[in-house]
Amino acid sequence: MASYKAPTREYGFLLHELLDLSRFSNLPGFADATPDLIDQIMEQAAKFSEEVLQPLNKVGDEQGCVLKDGEVTTPEGFRDAYQQLVEGGWPSLVCSPDYGGQGFPNTIGVLFNEMVSSANMAFGMYPGLSHGAYSALTHHGSDELKDIYLPKLVSGEWTGTMNLTEPHCGTDVGMLRTKAVPNGDGTYAITGQKIWISAGEHSMADNIIHLVLARIEGAPGGVGGISLFVVPKFLVNEDGSLGERNTLQCGGLEEKMGIHGNATCVMNYDGAKGWVVGEENKGLKAMFTMMNEARLGVGMQGISQAEVAYQNARDFALDRIQGRALTGPKNPDGPADPIIVHPDVRRMLMNIRAFNEGARALLVWTALWGDLAEKAEDEETRQKADDLMGLMTPIVKGYFTDKGFAHAVEAQQVYGGSGYTKEWGAEQFVRDARIAMIYEGTNGIQALDLVGRKLASKGGRAVFSFFKEVDDFVAANKDDAKLAEFITPLSDARKELEEATMWFMENALENPDNAGAGSADYLHLFALTAIALMWAQMAKAANTGLANGSGDKDYYETKLATGRYFINRILPQTTTHLTAVKAGADDVMALTAEQF
Amino acid sequence: MASYKAPTREYGFLLHELLDLSRFSNLPGFADATPDLIDQIMEQAAKFSEEVLQPLNKVGDEQGCVLKDGEVTTPEGFRDAYQQLVEGGWPSLVCSPDYGGQGFPNTIGVLFNEMVSSANMAFGMYPGLSHGAYSALTHHGSDELKDIYLPKLVSGEWTGTMNLTEPHCGTDVGMLRTKAVPNGDGTYAITGQKIWISAGEHSMADNIIHLVLARIEGAPGGVGGISLFVVPKFLVNEDGSLGERNTLQCGGLEEKMGIHGNATCVMNYDGAKGWVVGEENKGLKAMFTMMNEARLGVGMQGISQAEVAYQNARDFALDRIQGRALTGPKNPDGPADPIIVHPDVRRMLMNIRAFNEGARALLVWTALWGDLAEKAEDEETRQKADDLMGLMTPIVKGYFTDKGFAHAVEAQQVYGGSGYTKEWGAEQFVRDARIAMIYEGTNGIQALDLVGRKLASKGGRAVFSFFKEVDDFVAANKDDAKLAEFITPLSDARKELEEATMWFMENALENPDNAGAGSADYLHLFALTAIALMWAQMAKAANTGLANGSGDKDYYETKLATGRYFINRILPQTTTHLTAVKAGADDVMALTAEQF
Repeated sequence: MASYKAPTREYGFLLHELLDLSRFSNLPGFADATPDLIDQIMEQAAKFSEEVLQPLNKVGDEQGCVLKDGEVTTPEGFRDAYQQLVEGGWPSLVCSPDYGGQGFPNTIGVLFNEMVSSANMAFGMYPGLSHGAYSALTHHGSDELKDIYLPKLVSGEWTGTMNLTEPHCGTDVGMLRTKAVPNGDGTYAITGQKIWISAGEHSMADNIIHLVLARIEGAPGGVGGISLFVVPKFLVNEDGSLGERNTLQCGGLEEKMGIHGNATCVMNYDGAKGWVVGEENKGLKAMFTMMNEARLGVGMQGISQAEVAYQNARDFALDRIQGRALTGPKNPDGPADPIIVHPDVRRMLMNIRAFNEGARALLVWTALWGDLAEKAEDEETRQKADDLMGLMTPIVKGYFTDKGFAHAVEAQQVYGGSGYTKEWGAEQFVRDARIAMIYEGTNGIQALDLVGRKLASKGGRAVFSFFKEVDDFVAANKDDAKLAEFITPLSDARKELEEATMWFMENALENPDNAGAGSADYLHLFALTAIALMWAQMAKAANTGLANGSGDKDYYETKLATGRYFINRILPQTTTHLTAVKAGADDVMALTAEQF
Repeated sequence: MASYKAPTREYGFLLHELLDLSRFSNLPGFADATPDLIDQIMEQAAKFSEEVLQPLNKVGDEQGCVLKDGEVTTPEGFRDAYQQLVEGGWPSLVCSPDYGGQGFPNTIGVLFNEMVSSANMAFGMYPGLSHGAYSALTHHGSDELKDIYLPKLVSGEWTGTMNLTEPHCGTDVGMLRTKAVPNGDGTYAITGQKIWISAGEHSMADNIIHLVLARIEGAPGGVGGISLFVVPKFLVNEDGSLGERNTLQCGGLEEKMGIHGNATCVMNYDGAKGWVVGEENKGLKAMFTMMNEARLGVGMQGISQAEVAYQNARDFALDRIQGRALTGPKNPDGPADPIIVHPDVRRMLMNIRAFNEGARALLVWTALWGDLAEKAEDEETRQKADDLMGLMTPIVKGYFTDKGFAHAVEAQQVYGGSGYTKEWGAEQFVRDARIAMIYEGTNGIQALDLVGRKLASKGGRAVFSFFKEVDDFVAANKDDAKLAEFITPLSDARKELEEATMWFMENALENPDNAGAGSADYLHLFALTAIALMWAQMAKAANTGLANGSGDKDYYETKLATGRYFINRILPQTTTHLTAVKAGADDVMALTAEQF
């Protein structure tokens, strides 16, 4: 049976020692986030995740959700756990105080979400999607819509969803067919079928607020004619009480590989009453607000599964005795040594650990830029922050979920045969982690977003900002002999990333397929470089910690050793990715469709 | 719903054009294997796999096996399909004519097995394990045991199993506790519990022949005191009819991630009557005969799942319309282009395709050495063949299953969200493929077998044989300008492989962990080099085919394009693996056990 312990020491290191959030106490939300308070929040969240949510993870997988007469029953214990989530005030953590939120930075929120997701990924999707709906309404909704929906979404009394996909269109949302017909009173009658709607129906909350993309009758075809609507399960009376049931229904649950605890619904809208969010025909823009936030959240899910998979695989490796160390018995009084003595077992564990810590640093770094994009005092910082967050979003989503899954698989491998059985829980992490590479835009779409949109945007301003971050750090620390083992490989990776970037600039214009064929490799190359920057910065913070003689020597030395593993064993993959980018499209596109 | 079409054109290319089996018509079994007959066999096997086994693949996954009162019921249709397998004479294909077999080379047998496994991996394990039992008895059993058991194993009327793992020991088989007590009549009473016994109990065949590792009372501890026993489910009377039920029973079925159609049993032996196979206390050697063959078979399973996953993903990519090609509409009259126009979709499909074809070539190449090790006329060839087959076995098992799984995952990715649903079948290939990285020795064990045993054995004779194969091919074709695009990268990879090999020789003696820490990367580096050799040889065969003007121009051009993809996009991964090998053990072993 799997277990989970939230890595709160890591969180403290990242928020206080790496990012030093107290630097931003002049900004809204940050002032209240004193180190002590942050630590308290993290401890409480850890307890809730470990004790309430984690024990329901296997239950959720085994029982799944059940649809009967249009009503969805979630697994045993989910409803009660959701109630505790609401009572603890957790949904409001990073929401605006204007609507009852606690207003903390999302830099903290992403770590709270990681704990929830490590403990129970399927459960975490319910509040996760609500927050997406909250964000879309916050940024694009009218004051009237905000007043009706935000307080209840913030408190968690109501949950939210995101309705994009239809049977014939997912990525290519311009083909959608769901129709919106004006009712003449400012509302619209929404009709159509949406599929793969996570948390689309359940009875854990009093109401479900669907955000639905549809085309208003007579609007242009393609993406320029799509509008976003808020379509509640129950209509809301003027006094805020719940009125009649809207004409929408869950028509089926998807049978899927994992995240069984989350209801993946077919949603049928049959003239359901909806209100437009933001401008007509500008729905995609509003949906993107929701998706960008969701993409960071999905990247987080990659770490979350790799983290819990790591913890359990490590425990197994410390406990299971089998064979002897190559260098002689380490447990001479026992019949065999624990398998953690074997270099290949350590290689797998170190792979996961070095990823988890490096990726988590990049996650909070990116989330901090997201906070600064909204809250920084000067326009220049806000712009730079927005650039960097936009640039890193597809990287975080694509790389973290590719690797989060691969590392869940690697953790499963540590168990040998036990990893393949249901008993130990390792295989559930694999099945659950798999979806993260697909939803919120497949990782192929993330790579295309990076190469086709984010790189080119505003003359490459964002990528130059990133290079400057690296260069500034390298310049500031070039005389630090202790840091050279991190700085030099970081500089090398940065050069390779620049070379790949230049290659696209020189070759993608004449043939856009040259960008498409190398996009996935470029995304991985970028991610490795960014994580190398994180490791260099973490190494500096660890050296500082050691120099301060804080008594946590073991922690800092472990951090440095893990960083060295990343630099020497993982970072060299950049070279292969650069080669792949520069190989171009010819071999990728050589076959005719019929020759496949 | 998934489908499968056996790649018989590939088989013809490999057996006739690449290997040219007719060269060996002087050897037993090969003489009968004329190209025409081989093609006929393959066509019949294809029909059986496609029409009988494939439709049961999803049924098997959904229904699984059920244990009731010690009896195991296999999924609907399995029993009937097994009957058809037996009636078709398929189990006897590569067995010895002395016991009713058809005596064909295993080079053909592995391709038959691939078809069965692509169509239905869980089903294929039943006859697969029988063949392992056949081999162990053939090589190590007394004539008496052979006469009793082999004819029925050959015909398929009885099936076989392999009983190694116990709850506290898998890899470290020296710790096993199952006891064998002499009955005084030459038989033994076997008592103990074995777990993860594939095909351990079912009612598809009249008898099940268990091969069981146990320690004879009073034998030395460790691996030097283990003996192999044949323990039938039903005792066999002198006239060959079935006698009473032996005292062994299936005590439980494992719930697992995939291969639900195969019964993974807990087997309880309670003084069951057994006969020793080969010499007492030399059981491990006999078991290894079985395991080496099984390891090639598991490597084959990696290809089998990547092949069927590829076929279905390709069909989806040709059919699903979504978005437009970066270079302008390819389906201008439709609302969108088929997704196969997108470079990133092609990248995934080409990755899988280039692996499948290259790995399959290496599989038959290795199987041919296996046949020659037994059948070649001169001792020198037999020895070289045995060396090469032994060397390649862990590479085939480890690399093919790592990549077979990774490519099943990549195929699933092509589907987007549909790949995560049960409906399309893509996720079953992933779950089924996952076991192959684990059983018959985890891939970590394969890497250790390669680095710790196969490399060092007899002064590195096997690896030098491999280098000579490469060098001979390069020397013989160095003036072939058309082949340079394959020969040059092959030579480069060979140099890197040699560098890694030398690094081990220089650094593993002082610290064996240096071998362990780099073993997995070394295995991958070796596999890539060996597959590059296969692609160079296939390119030569394709060029010959083109020069002959056989009318199959399209086939050969596709082959060459796929080979170029492997060379330019996949082979460069060798560099990263070499870097990892040379990074050594320090970073891998830096943490104390407590620091994990």
